[in-house]
Amino acid sequence: MPSLEKALAALDADRQGALDRLFDLLRFKSISTDPAFKDDVARAADWLASHLNAMGFEASARKTPGHPIVVAKAKAARADAPHVLFYGHYDVQPVDPLELWETDPFAPSLKEVEPGWSQILGRGAGDDKGQLMTFVEACRAYKANGGLPCHVTLLFEGEEESGSSSLPDFLAANAKELKADLMLVCDTNMWDRQTPLITCMLRGLALEEVTIKAARRDLHSGMFGGPAVNPIHVLSQVIAGLRDAEGRVTLPDFYEGVPELPPEIRAQWAALKFDEAEFLGDVGLKTPAGEVAYSALEQIWARPTCDVNGIWGGYTAPGSKTVLPAEAHAKFSFRLVGKQNPQQILESFRAYVKACLPDDCEAEFLNHGASAAITLPFQSEAIQRASRALQAEWGKPPVLAASGGSIPIVGIFKRELKMDSLMVGFGLDDDRIHSPNEKYELSSFQKGARSWARILDALAN
Amino acid sequence: MPSLEKALAALDADRQGALDRLFDLLRFKSISTDPAFKDDVARAADWLASHLNAMGFEASARKTPGHPIVVAKAKAARADAPHVLFYGHYDVQPVDPLELWETDPFAPSLKEVEPGWSQILGRGAGDDKGQLMTFVEACRAYKANGGLPCHVTLLFEGEEESGSSSLPDFLAANAKELKADLMLVCDTNMWDRQTPLITCMLRGLALEEVTIKAARRDLHSGMFGGPAVNPIHVLSQVIAGLRDAEGRVTLPDFYEGVPELPPEIRAQWAALKFDEAEFLGDVGLKTPAGEVAYSALEQIWARPTCDVNGIWGGYTAPGSKTVLPAEAHAKFSFRLVGKQNPQQILESFRAYVKACLPDDCEAEFLNHGASAAITLPFQSEAIQRASRALQAEWGKPPVLAASGGSIPIVGIFKRELKMDSLMVGFGLDDDRIHSPNEKYELSSFQKGARSWARILDALAN
Repeated sequence: MPSLEKALAALDADRQGALDRLFDLLRFKSISTDPAFKDDVARAADWLASHLNAMGFEASARKTPGHPIVVAKAKAARADAPHVLFYGHYDVQPVDPLELWETDPFAPSLKEVEPGWSQILGRGAGDDKGQLMTFVEACRAYKANGGLPCHVTLLFEGEEESGSSSLPDFLAANAKELKADLMLVCDTNMWDRQTPLITCMLRGLALEEVTIKAARRDLHSGMFGGPAVNPIHVLSQVIAGLRDAEGRVTLPDFYEGVPELPPEIRAQWAALKFDEAEFLGDVGLKTPAGEVAYSALEQIWARPTCDVNGIWGGYTAPGSKTVLPAEAHAKFSFRLVGKQNPQQILESFRAYVKACLPDDCEAEFLNHGASAAITLPFQSEAIQRASRALQAEWGKPPVLAASGGSIPIVGIFKRELKMDSLMVGFGLDDDRIHSPNEKYELSSFQKGARSWARILDALAN
Repeated sequence: MPSLEKALAALDADRQGALDRLFDLLRFKSISTDPAFKDDVARAADWLASHLNAMGFEASARKTPGHPIVVAKAKAARADAPHVLFYGHYDVQPVDPLELWETDPFAPSLKEVEPGWSQILGRGAGDDKGQLMTFVEACRAYKANGGLPCHVTLLFEGEEESGSSSLPDFLAANAKELKADLMLVCDTNMWDRQTPLITCMLRGLALEEVTIKAARRDLHSGMFGGPAVNPIHVLSQVIAGLRDAEGRVTLPDFYEGVPELPPEIRAQWAALKFDEAEFLGDVGLKTPAGEVAYSALEQIWARPTCDVNGIWGGYTAPGSKTVLPAEAHAKFSFRLVGKQNPQQILESFRAYVKACLPDDCEAEFLNHGASAAITLPFQSEAIQRASRALQAEWGKPPVLAASGGSIPIVGIFKRELKMDSLMVGFGLDDDRIHSPNEKYELSSFQKGARSWARILDALAN
């Protein structure tokens, strides 16, 4: 029978071995965006497959039109155990500018930053090799101590940093094989280095480009300025009218499906004492500009937005040109939460734009994608069990958090495999992922593995 | 003594000679923007100077850092006669696309387009060689018939089509020599081929570029969308707030110095039956979009505007990018009339923009020039006399018109020499200046010369 206590003891007893194995993985230059590293990516996949086979998984590096996807499967000790699909990625970001690295990005090392506190240095340490190995080490500990509490399928992607282009087709083609009860994703952060965090919500995203057309051609503002409608003015009115003085989006029914936070979550978030001043101050701002009724953290995690990401029209080079342009353009994005329907919102937006148009103007729309928000209910069984497990490991309950951005792979799994994701990760905001001198806290790696051991146990019992 | 009757008779008697002389001038490839034609431009200047010397002017082609400026002077028969400075330009536009010309652009010809009605074809026929030669021919006729009614200084520029870059310094350096009682400019159009026109007003122009700055760097809209202020939204509010529902500019005191049209001018303009539908229809529009209280013609000729000529910010390439830009930019232009003060309007605009800024935003301003409107009062002596002269020639009073655009050289003369300009020209809107198959109506050339003979007489007596 699987034993949590023995698994935890095994993890504690083999800390050096776990670190050596992670360092082996970190040495592969598995940069997925640069074709020059194609063979390095493949070697990393092969190492993972062979490593997992040696652990008793049935593992292989599967071919895709891009980089390989490693799939590994192992049964639980008990046949009626739940089945989890764990996702991670073994590819990494490019390393330039190389001169800013204090160590060789592919020669991992341990650095003691304060007495008794060390960091793992190297490209991929935090994103995502260190994170995925927390789960692998938890599985290893169980395999040697009575077996796995859950059926486990591992899926390690090699293209996360280059757009996951092979993943949707791969999931669709292997849906039956990969379908599980719950997806586990280890690619997110903790609240701080002592406080675990479960990401329960990801905002959705609807992207729409608008072109306002007026005259048949660009006009001279001396000859036509006055009677000729200016599409830049019209577009500005469209944008200015989208939000009211309280920062709310004015589209009819926009807030339909937007849930109010459960009071206990709102209280938990308030208790986090999120430092708005520091958050905004880091980028040169000081005043939250969104909905006045919500804190900055609520605005990012739990409220929808409408933003313009780009605008252009007329003469934009140096100097001046007295032109009335024939067209003006803007790219809009809506961040969505809860059950907001992206298609309904896009329709409502298009209707609003059309209603703004004066005589002689028309609007053209170009969609750049739309996806609903992803929510794992705070009260769900998976979150309740994972919360208890994390509390046991860290001595405090996890923050039940949200993410303002999307995590594309979570959306892909939801769409292709209809699976909910439990997002637990042990990264920190200062891990410098995607930047020189990437690191992963040694405690994240060690207590992360222990956390997964506890979560697997909690899910099974 | 100068004799108008004899001068008119001389013009009628030597029509072929006048046409030959114009054709001689049209043959020079005096394209000022293209350095390859530098010598052709110089030869045209030399031809003019020698031609004018032969007519009894004291003429020379003066060197400038660019192309020569031809200056010619002749005294009136009476010492106490008024002194006029006539401006024209002998440089022409490039001829490309050459394949669209039906004739060689520098082999001028006459084409009978309907029985008894001919056009002069060739680059520069209408802009501005044909026009300047109307005045030269009027002077020639007087010189041979009792002398000039006015002291005349001719100034023919060779850089009008390339920005008149040498003219301001030349005028400043020769102000004393060139200063006269009135400037005559022949570079404008008639109302139609039977109706003369005096351009009494040119709108001024103030050009200001605005940059709205928010965060220190571009932000991710997932991470910051909501609390981070978006400078594109702010800029859109700036633009949307600049005009009210009646199409009026909302800046405080914007309309200070904007004259109401004299009732007789308003009536004259209304009687022109300006075809708004055709004017707007030509460019694919149908509804005048400016101040609702004014006709489209009044909006262009006599009302100020505020337009955005260009806008940009954020991501503008194909596809989408969920960025909150750090900056957004727009180029504004104000068309000004009457006594509107460009500096005061720019100050008022800057104050308005600053008042629109929410916390965390700042605005930077970059001026691209400002010039007041130019107005020769409808009731002025010069316009009254020129109107009588034109009525005598054309059988109907001239339209006392305005121009929505600026004519830079008129502003330069006003600024450098403090001289008012009487703008009378005989071009037509369909002369295809700047395009292939440029033409000038033969009647414009012949009756134009007769018109100037009458105007010189009217100014002197």
